Amino acid sequence: MRAEIIAIGSELLTPYRLDTNSLYLTDGLNQVGIRVVHKAVVGDSLDDMRASFRQALDRADLVVACGGLGPTDDDRTREAVADLLGRKLELNEGVLRHIQELFRRLGRVMPEINRRQAMVPEGATVIPNPRGSAPGLWIETRGHIVILLPGVPAELRAMFEQEIRPRLTRLGHDERLFTRDLRITGLPESEVEQRVSPLYALYPDTETTILASPPGIQLHPRVWSRDPAQANQILDEMVKRMALALGEHLYSTDGEAMEEVVARALTENRATIAVAESCTGGLLAERLTNIPGSSVYFLGGVVCYSNELKSSLVDVPAELIESKGAVSPEVALALADGIRKRTGATIGVGVTGIAGPGGGTPEKPVGLVHIGIADERGPRERRFQFPGDRERIRMHASQTALDSVRRYFLFPRGRT
Amino acid sequence: MRAEIIAIGSELLTPYRLDTNSLYLTDGLNQVGIRVVHKAVVGDSLDDMRASFRQALDRADLVVACGGLGPTDDDRTREAVADLLGRKLELNEGVLRHIQELFRRLGRVMPEINRRQAMVPEGATVIPNPRGSAPGLWIETRGHIVILLPGVPAELRAMFEQEIRPRLTRLGHDERLFTRDLRITGLPESEVEQRVSPLYALYPDTETTILASPPGIQLHPRVWSRDPAQANQILDEMVKRMALALGEHLYSTDGEAMEEVVARALTENRATIAVAESCTGGLLAERLTNIPGSSVYFLGGVVCYSNELKSSLVDVPAELIESKGAVSPEVALALADGIRKRTGATIGVGVTGIAGPGGGTPEKPVGLVHIGIADERGPRERRFQFPGDRERIRMHASQTALDSVRRYFLFPRGRT
Repeated sequence: MRAEIIAIGSELLTPYRLDTNSLYLTDGLNQVGIRVVHKAVVGDSLDDMRASFRQALDRADLVVACGGLGPTDDDRTREAVADLLGRKLELNEGVLRHIQELFRRLGRVMPEINRRQAMVPEGATVIPNPRGSAPGLWIETRGHIVILLPGVPAELRAMFEQEIRPRLTRLGHDERLFTRDLRITGLPESEVEQRVSPLYALYPDTETTILASPPGIQLHPRVWSRDPAQANQILDEMVKRMALALGEHLYSTDGEAMEEVVARALTENRATIAVAESCTGGLLAERLTNIPGSSVYFLGGVVCYSNELKSSLVDVPAELIESKGAVSPEVALALADGIRKRTGATIGVGVTGIAGPGGGTPEKPVGLVHIGIADERGPRERRFQFPGDRERIRMHASQTALDSVRRYFLFPRGRT
Repeated sequence: MRAEIIAIGSELLTPYRLDTNSLYLTDGLNQVGIRVVHKAVVGDSLDDMRASFRQALDRADLVVACGGLGPTDDDRTREAVADLLGRKLELNEGVLRHIQELFRRLGRVMPEINRRQAMVPEGATVIPNPRGSAPGLWIETRGHIVILLPGVPAELRAMFEQEIRPRLTRLGHDERLFTRDLRITGLPESEVEQRVSPLYALYPDTETTILASPPGIQLHPRVWSRDPAQANQILDEMVKRMALALGEHLYSTDGEAMEEVVARALTENRATIAVAESCTGGLLAERLTNIPGSSVYFLGGVVCYSNELKSSLVDVPAELIESKGAVSPEVALALADGIRKRTGATIGVGVTGIAGPGGGTPEKPVGLVHIGIADERGPRERRFQFPGDRERIRMHASQTALDSVRRYFLFPRGRT
């Protein structure tokens, strides 16, 4: 079954707003065995909308449209579809009561313009909207299905999960899409491609997308199949071979973020962590604490931009900064060791570097970052040279610092 | 002049990747007087591509397509367009030499497959690609223009700026789009709408998009005009009235981020800042240091997740935490004052709250955040209750903390 997604709304044709519902819808459709073959974005004009729906019905068995179901004059999706299919719009009393009830609960009377939202093309099935006033519509026409959903993501998602997904599943497509989500760090895209592409020929039924998603690389192998057991076996075997080819650079086979992998390693080892960061400016602490429940293992961090704070808050000797420079292996070591001792954490991490755009020299160029990791046996340090602008460098540095913690637990002998 | 943008590539029909080039292209086209009326995303199939280009040429005067110009079998944009327009593909010697030269500079011989990139439809103008091997193409056909560009954003942008924009400008559309970008914080979307919508009727030639972009609201008034002076006058006047309606909640009229506004206030006042944050977990420091040159005003920060660190690094009395709780006005005040005194900064900011999902109580629910600001006259504090999940709450809290610094300088008498 082939699907097209149409996003409706003139604001989606400005430089300010992207249709993002289609990613969610694509995922949901793929899971029930439906491929997306085309996506369109169209404005509020009736003519343009009619043409887009006509072309979509030529191309696809299923058309999912979002947006344009509100109460205002700009909301013309109902009208365009009814018109194209030659059906009348009729007032649906049940929908009207639902909308009136929504307003009553807010202590208000329904404005007259909201009646528009209760207009339904003849023969359409109403999809209730538990989170808002715009109902969805499910329309079958000459072997095709047209689904209209509101553009508000929370409403669209609730309606898709509660009504659309079960209905599409009942249509009983034998084939479904099975996928994996591999995350890799510390290798460039071309190197990842070189390592895994020989496997493609061994699994001719699969397709693999490689995605550069700084600071890492993602691999999405997938297979369409009628047989879940067989599909999962193929993917599991393929992922196992990919893992061998990628080695320690592979940190997740199920789409887990680096933060989550590190959180799990810390929790499983009953370890605590504290960080002292300079060039990452708080990003490392921010990522560690992005995980609910992180207070169990994250004790705290210091963002020591000034040299004075490196000494007063993390006990880096001022002479050391003076003699070696704030961006040096020695200061990274002292930051890691200092924050560990100050906080009593199992592991201390120190990051110092030059995020740019200013501050680089021939000996210490922009992108140079030292990362230290300390445990009770003392600190170790590695030097990195990251590419890109300030934001990229900070992202790479925080990712590599997290990866150093992951490797610390992966290789207990101390190879970080 | 009406334009359609076509993004080409099967990966853009997966749940993993969005076409983002179209935002950049829309902005560029609008600036030279061209409206985007439709966007499409199509996979690598020749049939689908031909159909999309045919429909786009029906709909629009100008079609800009990106992607599918690489050297592999999947890259079929050249073929689809040549085929649709009934033109032969011919080897272009100049393009071939450029590609060979690119490889030579890398110390390699051009692989045979890259010859495909030198195939050009009869009568097309080659748009040089200074950053890669895929040349762009400009094809005029029966009063329409088709522009083919590579999908790699850096290549596409360089080619648009250097070649496409000047060519489109020379076509001489009198009308151009003029816009403003207003940023608002601390008001919900409906309240912003209510305050500014009465102005719409006063400026009937303008159109305004309102955009909820958590943690704030954006307003984009725009006008198409042949007369730059008149357009700017209309927008300036409209923005002035909007500013009156929005009051202190408007923090930027030119799209400046909150971080930048705060950076400017600190720099202009020759002030320095230091932060002690708990529930924002480093996000406040991260945003302050996201700005190049922030080391001039940002001294440092402490992410004190544990109560011990609140005392040992920021001198919050342990008894105070014990008696009032870590999330309390008193601790926010002590954090702000403590970090200021520790670092010698002009201004200290303290943030403590409950980001959730756990840790809430009926008295102190998830979303409760206290923000303290201290200067040499002592600290002040405000209490907020933010909606949403952990990420939203942290984003709101960091935004409001930055806004408190902005207001500190806006109202020197001390109203924060």
